Amino acid sequence: MATLADIGVSAAFNIISALAFLVAFAILRLQPFNDRVYFPKWYLKGLRSSPTHDGAVLSKFVNLDYRSYLKFLNWMPDALRMPEAELIDHAGLDSAVYLRIYLLGLKIFVPITLLAFAILVPVNWTNDTLKKSDLNYSEIDKLSISNIPPGSQRFWTHLVMAYAFTFWTCYILYKEYGLIASMRFHFLASEHRRPDQFTVLVRNVPPDPDESVSELVEHFFLVNHPDHYLTHQVVHNANTLAKLVKKKKKMQNWLDFYQLKYSRNPSERPTTKTGFLGLWGARVDAMDFYTAEIDKTIEQVTAERDRVTNDPKAIMPAAFVSFKTRWGAAVCAQTQQSRNPTLWLTDWASEPRDVYWPNLAIPFVSLTVRRLIIAVAFFFLTFFFMIPIAIVQSLANLEGIEKSAPFLRPLIEMHFIKGVIQGFLPGIALKLFLIFLPSILMLFSKIEGFTSLSALERRSASKFYIFQLVNVFLGSVIAGTAFQQLHSFIHQSANEYPNSFSSSEDISKVIEYGALEASADLLSTGMLSNCYPVETTGHLPPEEFFLVKTEKDREEAMDPGSIGFNTGEPQIQLYFLLGLVYAVVTPILLPFVLVFFGLAYVVFRHQIINVYNPEYESGAAFWPDVHGRVLVGLVISQLLLLGLLSTKEKAQTTPVLLALPVLTIWFYYYCKNRFESAFTKYPLQEAMMKDTLERAREPNLNLKGYLQNAYIHPVFKGDDDDESVEVIDEWEKESLVPTKRQSRRNTPLPSKYSGSSSPSLPEVVHEKA
Amino acid sequence: MATLADIGVSAAFNIISALAFLVAFAILRLQPFNDRVYFPKWYLKGLRSSPTHDGAVLSKFVNLDYRSYLKFLNWMPDALRMPEAELIDHAGLDSAVYLRIYLLGLKIFVPITLLAFAILVPVNWTNDTLKKSDLNYSEIDKLSISNIPPGSQRFWTHLVMAYAFTFWTCYILYKEYGLIASMRFHFLASEHRRPDQFTVLVRNVPPDPDESVSELVEHFFLVNHPDHYLTHQVVHNANTLAKLVKKKKKMQNWLDFYQLKYSRNPSERPTTKTGFLGLWGARVDAMDFYTAEIDKTIEQVTAERDRVTNDPKAIMPAAFVSFKTRWGAAVCAQTQQSRNPTLWLTDWASEPRDVYWPNLAIPFVSLTVRRLIIAVAFFFLTFFFMIPIAIVQSLANLEGIEKSAPFLRPLIEMHFIKGVIQGFLPGIALKLFLIFLPSILMLFSKIEGFTSLSALERRSASKFYIFQLVNVFLGSVIAGTAFQQLHSFIHQSANEYPNSFSSSEDISKVIEYGALEASADLLSTGMLSNCYPVETTGHLPPEEFFLVKTEKDREEAMDPGSIGFNTGEPQIQLYFLLGLVYAVVTPILLPFVLVFFGLAYVVFRHQIINVYNPEYESGAAFWPDVHGRVLVGLVISQLLLLGLLSTKEKAQTTPVLLALPVLTIWFYYYCKNRFESAFTKYPLQEAMMKDTLERAREPNLNLKGYLQNAYIHPVFKGDDDDESVEVIDEWEKESLVPTKRQSRRNTPLPSKYSGSSSPSLPEVVHEKA
Repeated sequence: MATLADIGVSAAFNIISALAFLVAFAILRLQPFNDRVYFPKWYLKGLRSSPTHDGAVLSKFVNLDYRSYLKFLNWMPDALRMPEAELIDHAGLDSAVYLRIYLLGLKIFVPITLLAFAILVPVNWTNDTLKKSDLNYSEIDKLSISNIPPGSQRFWTHLVMAYAFTFWTCYILYKEYGLIASMRFHFLASEHRRPDQFTVLVRNVPPDPDESVSELVEHFFLVNHPDHYLTHQVVHNANTLAKLVKKKKKMQNWLDFYQLKYSRNPSERPTTKTGFLGLWGARVDAMDFYTAEIDKTIEQVTAERDRVTNDPKAIMPAAFVSFKTRWGAAVCAQTQQSRNPTLWLTDWASEPRDVYWPNLAIPFVSLTVRRLIIAVAFFFLTFFFMIPIAIVQSLANLEGIEKSAPFLRPLIEMHFIKGVIQGFLPGIALKLFLIFLPSILMLFSKIEGFTSLSALERRSASKFYIFQLVNVFLGSVIAGTAFQQLHSFIHQSANEYPNSFSSSEDISKVIEYGALEASADLLSTGMLSNCYPVETTGHLPPEEFFLVKTEKDREEAMDPGSIGFNTGEPQIQLYFLLGLVYAVVTPILLPFVLVFFGLAYVVFRHQIINVYNPEYESGAAFWPDVHGRVLVGLVISQLLLLGLLSTKEKAQTTPVLLALPVLTIWFYYYCKNRFESAFTKYPLQEAMMKDTLERAREPNLNLKGYLQNAYIHPVFKGDDDDESVEVIDEWEKESLVPTKRQSRRNTPLPSKYSGSSSPSLPEVVHEKA
Repeated sequence: MATLADIGVSAAFNIISALAFLVAFAILRLQPFNDRVYFPKWYLKGLRSSPTHDGAVLSKFVNLDYRSYLKFLNWMPDALRMPEAELIDHAGLDSAVYLRIYLLGLKIFVPITLLAFAILVPVNWTNDTLKKSDLNYSEIDKLSISNIPPGSQRFWTHLVMAYAFTFWTCYILYKEYGLIASMRFHFLASEHRRPDQFTVLVRNVPPDPDESVSELVEHFFLVNHPDHYLTHQVVHNANTLAKLVKKKKKMQNWLDFYQLKYSRNPSERPTTKTGFLGLWGARVDAMDFYTAEIDKTIEQVTAERDRVTNDPKAIMPAAFVSFKTRWGAAVCAQTQQSRNPTLWLTDWASEPRDVYWPNLAIPFVSLTVRRLIIAVAFFFLTFFFMIPIAIVQSLANLEGIEKSAPFLRPLIEMHFIKGVIQGFLPGIALKLFLIFLPSILMLFSKIEGFTSLSALERRSASKFYIFQLVNVFLGSVIAGTAFQQLHSFIHQSANEYPNSFSSSEDISKVIEYGALEASADLLSTGMLSNCYPVETTGHLPPEEFFLVKTEKDREEAMDPGSIGFNTGEPQIQLYFLLGLVYAVVTPILLPFVLVFFGLAYVVFRHQIINVYNPEYESGAAFWPDVHGRVLVGLVISQLLLLGLLSTKEKAQTTPVLLALPVLTIWFYYYCKNRFESAFTKYPLQEAMMKDTLERAREPNLNLKGYLQNAYIHPVFKGDDDDESVEVIDEWEKESLVPTKRQSRRNTPLPSKYSGSSSPSLPEVVHEKA
């Protein structure tokens, strides 16, 4: 086990690395060349222009103003200076509330740390159980619960502390839930008119031999919502079309690339091979080849577009139905329409850019089967993912490679390369798996058929959290330090269990994962500016990774992406879990958890203000998940403490401790009852208020024109994509109430990521035919 | 263990007892004196008059027509003859669907029994494992799975059968759920106009310093449902008033009793004592005393009535809000009204006679706390109820009695009495507990604050089922026969476990509980006609048990009660559980389960047609619970088979069997998704259809007048109780569509049991002042 010195070295190393990262960041961000990289959000909003336009050549790339270096850490107060209301205006509610997760961590753990250091540390320190025992222990273990002799009355202190920590955590969670619910309502109430306020997604329209889907929808809602129905838009299965459009765009990109190459070197016409990735096949003239390919694809696109528009089979039994009032839409979204509860299913439409179009084409009846299959698959992924990886790892050894590829033998036998491979190979399958895991989980969620990006991210985050809980926390922290040491635990003494459980190795883990990660994120946007923001979103887009060929590619690659809720939030939850579990057992860990939350808060605030560009706005719909997971961590911590105290010959505390998880679970349901509907439903009172206000302000509003094309599949918008944005901008300008919010200007844009395989792959599905 | 002969004797005894009961019933029901007892439902509906009005004295009491005795078993085909549609008209949908639970049992178990006897019994029989082993076994065990040698390939047959049984059960459950959902919709669609179709119960109206609750409710709904709001009725906390009225009624009853006594024997004025139950205190003239008491109570009632009507503190922050259309009510019931999801809570109002008024006075904020407390209390009741009973039993022994009451010693020391007490005492605490258990569970549900009798019964049924599952099934059948034999299991052989698990003792249990119970129910209404129908409802009203004093008492005591869903349904579920668990393991039990379902079906069909008088009509709202519990039984049976096969050295079947519970649980969620909302929501399509029809038929309907007083607390209706019934009857007659349904005539009556402590205590809270 690590001694105090080890911990010190580890901490020093990590803190120095973190500081080095921070300094590097502070200097790099001042260089004009990096300006676009570190402030992309301001560019996207058109509020900052490149500083490289004028001046000397050198000053385009290097900042020569020495004064700016003196204040190089100013970004930190800068990041903290923007008030929250402005932050919501600037970056949206999702981002602002995401930041509050870190704040929540600080609010929970600062008082807990103070209390633990004031009470628990002295109580633990003033014992000498470890000194008496002949166990191998470190100085730092004297601060933990393992220093208390079995059966001691001092354990009642820990029990009281467990109660205090639980009540404090629940109190803060309760306050925060209420605050965020009211922030959400305030946000929704002060929002502009948006198509999704009036629109409901209707799924599973029953087939009718006499009427088309469109007629059927119109008749149904004219009959059952006679005073409120306005218009509707049927959903087309345009997935093939979207694929063709994407293919055309790719071809166009290659053509641009070769034309650029040719213009640089006109003496030689570029050539390519017709096969896979241009690696084999007949060699042809590249520009001719791609021009012909594009023409072919355009024909296909036209044919497919005709088919989708005219073939009734391409029309899905689903529609976006719009209402005259928000009240009407709220009523329709929250009620059951038909006698058969699986027909005419209504739910709020996501905002247009949040819609995940490919999944709208999934037949509703297959959804339950899909969820079952994914649930089973996820179970096996979580508990048995090591089996295939172990197989791959056993194959991917040196002997195996030499056998299957004998020509590599001379290379492999070289001393240096052999060493590298031997050090590198064993973990590679696991590392690759962990890199691809978020994408796999996102794919799972997509197969489950959720129709909005926000729902997909939330669902993936849940899966990622469960995976981490089982494998990282339960598997590594507990099994690794406790259950694997079960052998010595059984054969030596009952004191071993708490020792190993609160061992200082975990401290290294916290330091290692925590501080470094946050500061690395700061740099990552800079270091990876020429490829995709792998670090920030956790996704690695395999295909286009090294294919930055044209200016357009570069522009897309520069898109800073969004926070990446599906990977980021479960990571934070691990710190909540560690903090709560060790608060009573080994309070010495708490300051490191605090450092993580504090540093990460500043870093992410900077990133959200300057870098990230959210893909959608869900109005903090993820908060119930965050709240629930912190409570899961709390219950786990209580159960572990219960187990720990029962091994410490203090079983009479069990009934007193048992009340804690019961109360916590009850608190979960109480909060669910109290707040959750604020995140899933839209109260009629609010709807009526906004309707009345709007009617008073704009009595002659042509709502039908506004909603007519809001939910058209993006591939149908085609060239006039920018045009439609203008139309909507005009609509917003017509509004009589001036608004200072800028970031919501492009809200009614359709989803940019409809055709891509992952929401973190920013690709605009344009059609330029 | 029991041998085949034992089983035979047990079966013969039980079947003979059952037949004797049936014959006794068949003869007793023919006697004119018992006519009112065996056909009370027809009396209540006014369709049958007493046959004792005319004729000879003897024929008033004894049926002398010998021909009727020849056809004495005719009641069985009679009971089966009434078609289901007519049964629904006659007794309501609740009763008709309750009968379908027995039918469901037959549908599930008849094919399972045939298949099991065709395949499993020969497979089990043609082994000689038991013969080879030196275990004590009976012939009947040769038919069970314990006759198969460990590790045999024959276990695959059982596995295939488990799959077949599961799929068959799920198929039937699915069909039945769909059918009952459509029956419910048909029932609701063909129903008369009823106040609850237009009315929503609003709870937790926020306090307002400027407006009364009534004004606040009116303004809120005028603003937020401007086109639909019609009227409302605030809820008063009239619990004290109801208690006083009840007290007055009781006094009146005593007065009647003494007046009757005096009229019979005018020479002596009856006296009573003023103390508890008239047992001690000063002796006074009974009639004077009660007259004075009544006068005093009337004064109190008047004062309290004034207070409740005028004091704003007596008005609860809740109201019954009525709408102009069913559509408006459906919208309001299914949507969230206010930004704060715990304010302005709306839900469908129960039909007026189903409302449980005392709980409407519970402040909404206390509900979550109440549920937590009850959950904890129920947990302790279920798992630790034996502790207090064991203490009571240890106190209630002969020595204890002799010590505490030495004057009883001569009596106790008598040989005969000593024997009786010794045989009787040990079980008495447990028996008393089991008799009161349904009332305790009902009390728990009442504390939880449900506002309708139907919800209370459903909730109590869930609790009773869990209690029985834990204690009767898991505790007795498994622990009793398997885990208590764990000792011999460990020390002897692995074959013991399946033996004991499928032991023939369980067969006796099935016979004992099953066949007899159903036929006893037939007689119980007759035998207990002078006190309360204890057997049929499972309730024992302690106070009034032997106090049948006046004609009014007798009339109330004659009320046959209703099915008693809260005790009846969990009992049936035990048979489902037994059948499913033993279907694969010991198929020989299945015929007995079949006999139970068949006999019980006929008996209850007779009872429902002729005896029971349902208190309310919930439209089969309990079916999702029934469905869910059968599936719980199915999952338990699968897990037990899994454990059994793994002890039989057939662990390779585990993964194949593990798929079964996963699929079953998935099936549960699939059905929930598919059907459940049919039982909790009212689709807008239906509402709109009924509204449109009604508007076409009765364009000048005065709906406001119809709904004005529908939800007034019954104590306020006071004397004009009958009058209000007439008013409503007139309303029904006004309806242009003639209906043959008779049983629904008195639907809009207020709840009869508002003030009583248990819904099975029939007491009309009249006020005759």
